[in-house]
Amino acid sequence: MHPAGLRTDSAGLRRSESGGPNVTSQTLDNGLEVLVIPDRRVPVVTHMVWYRNGSADDPLGQSGIAHFLEHLMFKGTERNPAGEFSKVVSALGGQENAFTSYDYTAYFQRVAPQHLGRMMDFEADRMAGLNFDASVVAPERDVVLEERRMRVETDPPAQLSEAMAAALFVHHPYGIPIIGWMHEIETLNRANAFDYYRRFYAPDNAILVVSGDVEASEVIRLAETTYGRNAPHSGAAERVRPREPDPRAARHVSIADPKVEQPTLQRLYLVPSVCTASGNESHALELLAEILGSGPTSHLYRKLVLETGRAVNAGAWYMASALDDSRMAFYAVPAQGVTPAELEADLDRVLADVSGALDADSIERAKTRLIAETVYSLDSQSSLARIYGSARAIGQSVEDVRTWPDAVRAVTRDDLATVAAQYLVRRRSVTGYLLSGEPS
Amino acid sequence: MHPAGLRTDSAGLRRSESGGPNVTSQTLDNGLEVLVIPDRRVPVVTHMVWYRNGSADDPLGQSGIAHFLEHLMFKGTERNPAGEFSKVVSALGGQENAFTSYDYTAYFQRVAPQHLGRMMDFEADRMAGLNFDASVVAPERDVVLEERRMRVETDPPAQLSEAMAAALFVHHPYGIPIIGWMHEIETLNRANAFDYYRRFYAPDNAILVVSGDVEASEVIRLAETTYGRNAPHSGAAERVRPREPDPRAARHVSIADPKVEQPTLQRLYLVPSVCTASGNESHALELLAEILGSGPTSHLYRKLVLETGRAVNAGAWYMASALDDSRMAFYAVPAQGVTPAELEADLDRVLADVSGALDADSIERAKTRLIAETVYSLDSQSSLARIYGSARAIGQSVEDVRTWPDAVRAVTRDDLATVAAQYLVRRRSVTGYLLSGEPS
Repeated sequence: MHPAGLRTDSAGLRRSESGGPNVTSQTLDNGLEVLVIPDRRVPVVTHMVWYRNGSADDPLGQSGIAHFLEHLMFKGTERNPAGEFSKVVSALGGQENAFTSYDYTAYFQRVAPQHLGRMMDFEADRMAGLNFDASVVAPERDVVLEERRMRVETDPPAQLSEAMAAALFVHHPYGIPIIGWMHEIETLNRANAFDYYRRFYAPDNAILVVSGDVEASEVIRLAETTYGRNAPHSGAAERVRPREPDPRAARHVSIADPKVEQPTLQRLYLVPSVCTASGNESHALELLAEILGSGPTSHLYRKLVLETGRAVNAGAWYMASALDDSRMAFYAVPAQGVTPAELEADLDRVLADVSGALDADSIERAKTRLIAETVYSLDSQSSLARIYGSARAIGQSVEDVRTWPDAVRAVTRDDLATVAAQYLVRRRSVTGYLLSGEPS
Repeated sequence: MHPAGLRTDSAGLRRSESGGPNVTSQTLDNGLEVLVIPDRRVPVVTHMVWYRNGSADDPLGQSGIAHFLEHLMFKGTERNPAGEFSKVVSALGGQENAFTSYDYTAYFQRVAPQHLGRMMDFEADRMAGLNFDASVVAPERDVVLEERRMRVETDPPAQLSEAMAAALFVHHPYGIPIIGWMHEIETLNRANAFDYYRRFYAPDNAILVVSGDVEASEVIRLAETTYGRNAPHSGAAERVRPREPDPRAARHVSIADPKVEQPTLQRLYLVPSVCTASGNESHALELLAEILGSGPTSHLYRKLVLETGRAVNAGAWYMASALDDSRMAFYAVPAQGVTPAELEADLDRVLADVSGALDADSIERAKTRLIAETVYSLDSQSSLARIYGSARAIGQSVEDVRTWPDAVRAVTRDDLATVAAQYLVRRRSVTGYLLSGEPS
């Protein structure tokens, strides 16, 4: 139930080894796409529904509504009163969750295979028959407001993240927080929520992903008798996304707060996503983030922490999984006596000479590591479902997921040098300082 | 024909001395508001039509369309081919112009009084019967693209202004340039332009302002026989304006370019406009800008230029005239050997102790100066029309304009200290550096 994008986490999209699981894909008559991913190691099934709408599709002035809807989806339907679905999941010894991201919203349960049909029945029910009673909507809005107060309003690092995203995306809605701006959440009402639900919550805007010890034919049969009852809406809901203008100015953002105990330095660059990249740019950026900033053997960690002691931690990540132009991030925690501004100069020196990090050995080791991490993550059934679901939700194919390791292996030193030179330039960047002190 | 907001100019709204001209106001049956402002000093009349839509009303993804429409308004109608209107104005020895701002678009002619009816006939004709032939729309879009190339793409100060506005307004459309983002102008087409025209170009979304040696009754009679023929649209076009979130982070923006010969420092603060202010905040901000940064006797000029020689110029302005929260600006041009960052520290020291500038004498002199400037500007008939037109276009009353000098006179030292303490805080600000050097 937490907006996934509030976590600083690059692991949105990870894919299977080439020739990984045999995914079955079929679309029902009402437009619902069904993916079945066999995983027979444990007697458990993961059931997810992905909607192709996230916070970046929030209507103007209604930021936070995608996430608000995610909350409302737990407030019951005519057939199943609030709490009933969760109670059943719990009684069956299952787990459930949901999350809202920029480009999608997803609902998740994990139960024993014999209960899959029941999960589908519940999930299909709230896709079409959600309760929008005033007695539900207003109190739940207060819950979201309180969530924002706790997670952002009183948390300087979260405030810095929001301010940096807003500075990076001056025009595109990725600059708007997933949870929404406080003053807009406050105005969300029943009519907004119902309109939004009617627009996006439909079988032809959704992807059903089932992973586990199940037969594809049986899953599809169950889907037809549950989700199949829901009528499609007229055509897929259109996503209206303005494109970010070509960045011209290097930007800095600072937050000072007495609550900050450890100052930090952050840097974001506007870079292509897996959907907007040309050629293999996105794979090169993934590998570049791995080489430069993944863990204590990374280039950045060596330069800033081990060799010079200027920082106590440093790293990088890249958000490949996004429908529109996305972000690559660097962060560093200054050592005692070093200011974020001083550390920024060090970071810029390291980034100005990336070529030193691009020897054949480092590249090879990074490829092995990046692919192994992904393979490891596939060991989790829910990761498996999540990888395929998120890929399809932004329009990637099952084949894109399956061939991802090959694409990473094919990245050359030149590819890495090219994306670094093209995208890691100051005018595409926002630098953030989290400072200890009185807000000014 | 130039987007007014591209100029860094605080003089959007200036008003008459209390008890100034006797303005006649009447609304026609079709919703057109008519203001007649007597000015009998010269045998000339100023004819303006103001539309209550500006660039901040551009639909998502269609930035620049308000300004594009302003261009298209000169491309003729069925009755009057392209160039005809301009040719007649010129043949009559008149002048004409038009401009697009954030909150309105206006068209203007100045002719001898006996030609007023003819101007009205032309202007009413293009309000309702504009030509949207493909042969007109696409070439005119190229003209606008070229305008943007000349004014922004090759002009580092303009790029800095755009980047600063985008950083100040992270959510509100005042962060989008009036002329539009290049990549969105490129996609504007006939259908967009026609939809926009249908939505906003209507008598019930317009204000006719006539200033000059004319009788109000005659102006209204002429308006009825010209504009009166245009049918109203169904209801006034709604302005959908998201509000800016409460600012949390101090921001910096830099542009480096070899073309820059003189580095400069800029600072913007998010402040209330005359429309969003509580009490007399907006009048206090106007007076504060006058005291701190208007000309060589201002506080900032004394501190940064005369007393310390750190800058060769310095000043401030405040854009009062805006429908939504607006901006107060400071600028300083560093002396030889001083960097913008160093000068910023000086500026912050001066702004941290504004109280030194708020002695009774300085306040009194600033009030006299500010009011006198306004009275002086009223000596120009076109200023007169512009002051009343822009005020009505953002929903201010004629009375607001007339009583403005009294409101300025009523501002106290406490009012000034209060707005300075409340709004001139770093977290509400964006600082800009224009630097000489290679773009990074």
